[in-house]
Amino acid sequence: MILQAVIDIAEICARKGVEDIVLSPGSRCAPLTLAFARHPQLRVRTVPDERSAAFIGLGIAQQTGKPVVLVCTSGTAAYNYAPAVAEAFYQNIPLLVLTADRPPEWIDQLDGQTIRQANIYGGHVKRSFDFPVDTNHVDSQWYAARLLNEALNEAVAFPEGPVHVNIPLREPFYPEPDEEFAYSRDVKVIEEVPSGYGLPAQVWEQLKTELKQYRRVLVVAGQGRRDEALHDEIVRFCRATGAVFIADTISNQQVAGETINFHDVFLGAKHLHTTEALQADLLITFHKSLISKNLKLFLRKQQHLQHWHVQPAGMVADTFQSLTRIIRTTPQDFFAQVNQKEASLQVSPAFTNAWHELEMQGKSVLEGFQENSPFSEFQVCHQVLRSLPQNSLLHLANSMSVRYANLIGVAEKEGVEVFANRGTSGIDGSTSTAVGSALSTDKLVTLLTGDMAFLYDRNALWHNYLPQNLRIVVLNNHGGGIFRMIEGPRSQPELRPFFETDQRLTAQKTAEDMGLTYVRVTDAASLEAALSNFLNHLAGPQLLEVETSSPENFAVFEDYRKQVNSSIQL
Amino acid sequence: MILQAVIDIAEICARKGVEDIVLSPGSRCAPLTLAFARHPQLRVRTVPDERSAAFIGLGIAQQTGKPVVLVCTSGTAAYNYAPAVAEAFYQNIPLLVLTADRPPEWIDQLDGQTIRQANIYGGHVKRSFDFPVDTNHVDSQWYAARLLNEALNEAVAFPEGPVHVNIPLREPFYPEPDEEFAYSRDVKVIEEVPSGYGLPAQVWEQLKTELKQYRRVLVVAGQGRRDEALHDEIVRFCRATGAVFIADTISNQQVAGETINFHDVFLGAKHLHTTEALQADLLITFHKSLISKNLKLFLRKQQHLQHWHVQPAGMVADTFQSLTRIIRTTPQDFFAQVNQKEASLQVSPAFTNAWHELEMQGKSVLEGFQENSPFSEFQVCHQVLRSLPQNSLLHLANSMSVRYANLIGVAEKEGVEVFANRGTSGIDGSTSTAVGSALSTDKLVTLLTGDMAFLYDRNALWHNYLPQNLRIVVLNNHGGGIFRMIEGPRSQPELRPFFETDQRLTAQKTAEDMGLTYVRVTDAASLEAALSNFLNHLAGPQLLEVETSSPENFAVFEDYRKQVNSSIQL
Repeated sequence: MILQAVIDIAEICARKGVEDIVLSPGSRCAPLTLAFARHPQLRVRTVPDERSAAFIGLGIAQQTGKPVVLVCTSGTAAYNYAPAVAEAFYQNIPLLVLTADRPPEWIDQLDGQTIRQANIYGGHVKRSFDFPVDTNHVDSQWYAARLLNEALNEAVAFPEGPVHVNIPLREPFYPEPDEEFAYSRDVKVIEEVPSGYGLPAQVWEQLKTELKQYRRVLVVAGQGRRDEALHDEIVRFCRATGAVFIADTISNQQVAGETINFHDVFLGAKHLHTTEALQADLLITFHKSLISKNLKLFLRKQQHLQHWHVQPAGMVADTFQSLTRIIRTTPQDFFAQVNQKEASLQVSPAFTNAWHELEMQGKSVLEGFQENSPFSEFQVCHQVLRSLPQNSLLHLANSMSVRYANLIGVAEKEGVEVFANRGTSGIDGSTSTAVGSALSTDKLVTLLTGDMAFLYDRNALWHNYLPQNLRIVVLNNHGGGIFRMIEGPRSQPELRPFFETDQRLTAQKTAEDMGLTYVRVTDAASLEAALSNFLNHLAGPQLLEVETSSPENFAVFEDYRKQVNSSIQL
Repeated sequence: MILQAVIDIAEICARKGVEDIVLSPGSRCAPLTLAFARHPQLRVRTVPDERSAAFIGLGIAQQTGKPVVLVCTSGTAAYNYAPAVAEAFYQNIPLLVLTADRPPEWIDQLDGQTIRQANIYGGHVKRSFDFPVDTNHVDSQWYAARLLNEALNEAVAFPEGPVHVNIPLREPFYPEPDEEFAYSRDVKVIEEVPSGYGLPAQVWEQLKTELKQYRRVLVVAGQGRRDEALHDEIVRFCRATGAVFIADTISNQQVAGETINFHDVFLGAKHLHTTEALQADLLITFHKSLISKNLKLFLRKQQHLQHWHVQPAGMVADTFQSLTRIIRTTPQDFFAQVNQKEASLQVSPAFTNAWHELEMQGKSVLEGFQENSPFSEFQVCHQVLRSLPQNSLLHLANSMSVRYANLIGVAEKEGVEVFANRGTSGIDGSTSTAVGSALSTDKLVTLLTGDMAFLYDRNALWHNYLPQNLRIVVLNNHGGGIFRMIEGPRSQPELRPFFETDQRLTAQKTAEDMGLTYVRVTDAASLEAALSNFLNHLAGPQLLEVETSSPENFAVFEDYRKQVNSSIQL
């Protein structure tokens, strides 16, 4: 007999709003597999490679905003989840990770697929639970049900994240032919009503009074979801005060004419990092990480900066080494409060104008360069990003893809939302995450990736759920081209074998194996010709491979850098 | 400037007998990459997918018996090592795992590729070290060098295993053009002279006296390396006393006429598990795990069993729930001591004869069945194993491959050594381990694997070191055929989608991508025809795919089970 408490895990998940389950095959996890697969309200998929399965789950949860349940068997299966669990932890994505285990008396007894699974994800889960082995006692039944509620409540409590429940299971794993297999009608549900967050009136008064002393204010958005209400409040704030609003591509806040979008271009001119006219006295940030290394370096050079970070709860990073105040409310509440009265501060027009002047120069240098430069990855990214359909999704793999995209931006695209695994910035799960995303939206999902990231994670496509709306652009320079862009590795004799890695595959056979239409281009005209069909919503899953040479990509990028350095002037 | 203490890590490794390094590309680890890649005495390879890289390292260390150094960059790269680290821990394989990291002040600061790496492998390493961040102080330099020595000494101390050193590194990662890059001449070396193990004379007398009371003695070898001296001692012991020596395929102790090799066949007749004639009163075991579930079940049913396990040091499993004595010396010393005097015990001839009678029956049933059964995986495994060249290596993937091979055995093969990842029994690294093995021997290395295990780990072949002596047999039944063999999942409607997983690929495109000659067979005659060239030492790397149907494989196996049950009689 399968324990009722195990069957009821699926029922509790369904009652608490879970919709998607990603299973991986196994025997020890069979009671969980059956409990989820048979549940009428749950969407259940199975993916053999647990590393990809977990990133697919992450992609689904990222899209739906609801916790996704992962189920794997015992042993190293659980460890293959770890990269995605760490990414979910730093990207604040809710996952409920259920790992089947042997009961404790069988650990270390040389029986198959048994490792030490308790707390296996270390510091990369919000909490880790051990499901009770025996649930005969009524207290154990209460504990089992309560624990599932606690785990799910924890996963979705702000800031969201992964929670682990290790579930020891004894045989039998499968119901007897005459055994009833039914969910309990009255499962325990503990609903958690989250706080709205906010600050007392007198604190607001004090913050607004303080704000008035600043004359050179930057608002910088980190990685986050599209949020138009928040965006509008910030734009109101900036229009009223003259504050400058800087948005990386992955912030999903870029709007042409409203935000500074080409900072990663113009701050490439390093002499600007100490230019007096750009020096800020207050930095207001919200959400997660930045891509722009130029902006990070610029901000770390600011001598007299106060840095306010607005985040309702959870760990706050001091990314620019200047953090002075953490404000525990939502960014929208913050800007709405500050916007309530007459302009709470007045930014120096010279400061505002300097940034907007540079924005125009950055855009102009970038567009001019793209028009006249030879065919290379940089141009490919530009062409792809400018061709994206409105209201579609863009996934960016680490490591050059996301950097090119951050230079180019999506400011002129309406409704293009951008995702990248910048929690840990690994190359291990970008394709899987895009697959999970595509499974959870009707919009077109375009993944821009490199050959290393694509081939590393090709098991992302090894299952029976290939999404029709998935498009993959593989920038194939036969190695980790990023290493040639960096001075250090470029000048070492080990560059090609040990840094770029000299990988020789194309994505063709993988695409063919996985059922994606494969298109290969090697010049601008064929790229242009291919893109319109490629990005057609009805064209089915496709992979567009663009082969370029790493030395040529480097040469073009060097030209670009020179042009930035010689053209950008304040 | 790169820290001298970091450069000297490579020198210390070389002085302490390390020969092989497996790197994965990254920037944070660049100082380590350069230190190892430039060292004239070290063999350095680079493998992009860290999951495969670590299993390749494990395969090398398994073969050479020397610790292999793994080097990866910071972030989730380290987590991708975890499955192989756990396997090495339970299989007692020495690995020195060097993970580059950011210095502690940058953890959790939203900078790329940064996770919480300290103690990341939890209970699956023998020890975990934090390399000093700053090595300006002379004590820190002493600590850095001492720590490396301690780590390497720990990795090779019996029982061997993985050791982790987390290495925080600050920029710059690359030497300046004019910077001298040289290993120190006088690096610290702490040599550890291991104990020889042994028991005092009076303890031996007591053990021998006790031994005399037993009349029904089984010696069971767990997974281990070939060891002819040990084998000969045990055979001497068994000849003198009548004790029965049982050897699984992965024990590397099978010799026709000397060991019981078909126990997994005849103990499939469950009525034997309680047959009086087979009941043992003393079980002597050594080395690691068993494959044979039938033998495990039989041993767990023994009512009046004393179980002595011989192992010099380290954790001992009570696999059969009957462990009564742990003897802390080497198996060879144990049997040599016991063999020193006249027969220390006399086993009942009826007991000895019963086992040897069943061995003949088991062999006869198996061979008779193979001659007459239709084409299926079982027959393919039989044909492959019987065709293996002498003095070659056989790698067995989890999960059906290793089970078929354990039924069939290699007892009549001279010098065929068998390997399988039975530390954790995962399917995640079998191909990579075989690749590591093939890189470290001139012998032919044949991997017998299934489609799930092969495709899961196909990045095992994604690098520039394809071994000429590698042969891969893929048993493709388009899913996890093992689940159909088990009563429980077979009778569930979820069998095909959620247990077998219905995977549709063949290995052809992967083989073509990776440069292996691809041969596909679907019947016995073409298999027979293909095998002689396939196993020719000069034929170059090849992949032989055998497609079979999962329901037919099951039908054949059912027939086999029936035949065992009806034929085996004592």
